[in-house]
Amino acid sequence: MDNGGFTTVLGLVAGTLTTLSFLPQLLKAWKSRSTHDISFGMLALFSAGLVLWIVYGLIVADVPVIMANSVTLVFVGLILVLKLRYR
Amino acid sequence: MDNGGFTTVLGLVAGTLTTLSFLPQLLKAWKSRSTHDISFGMLALFSAGLVLWIVYGLIVADVPVIMANSVTLVFVGLILVLKLRYR
Repeated sequence: MDNGGFTTVLGLVAGTLTTLSFLPQLLKAWKSRSTHDISFGMLALFSAGLVLWIVYGLIVADVPVIMANSVTLVFVGLILVLKLRYR
Repeated sequence: MDNGGFTTVLGLVAGTLTTLSFLPQLLKAWKSRSTHDISFGMLALFSAGLVLWIVYGLIVADVPVIMANSVTLVFVGLILVLKLRYR
């Protein structure tokens, strides 16, 4: 699986970007207490998909895939909680 | 890279879920013409991350990673266009 340090670093940077991207969304929803424009379907389908990505990453032993999707699941889960609270 | 048909199918299902999850968000933004609660930072960082994921997937020759992130980039790009149009 290991195609060298560069590839793993690239994957980790990619994962860091897609993961951290949900932080401004989480903060925005938290501060504004408004989630009307955010699709519940998106959050639900995305969370389900993240769980499967984590299982996939575990099977193919892909560290960036496992780590990125796990942290993203925490953020998206929190946004989902805010969506349910501030409908 | 190929750990068997099941693993590839699992990855493709995971990718289909995380990719299709942006479709309800795209339709919601399109219909409501309102994207106020959607974070621009999320869309920008997520798009940048998707580009790197595609490069990563190409290097490690991971078909589910390449396909899922490519289609997701199209959907998220369209949501970004709507965000810029309906601020």
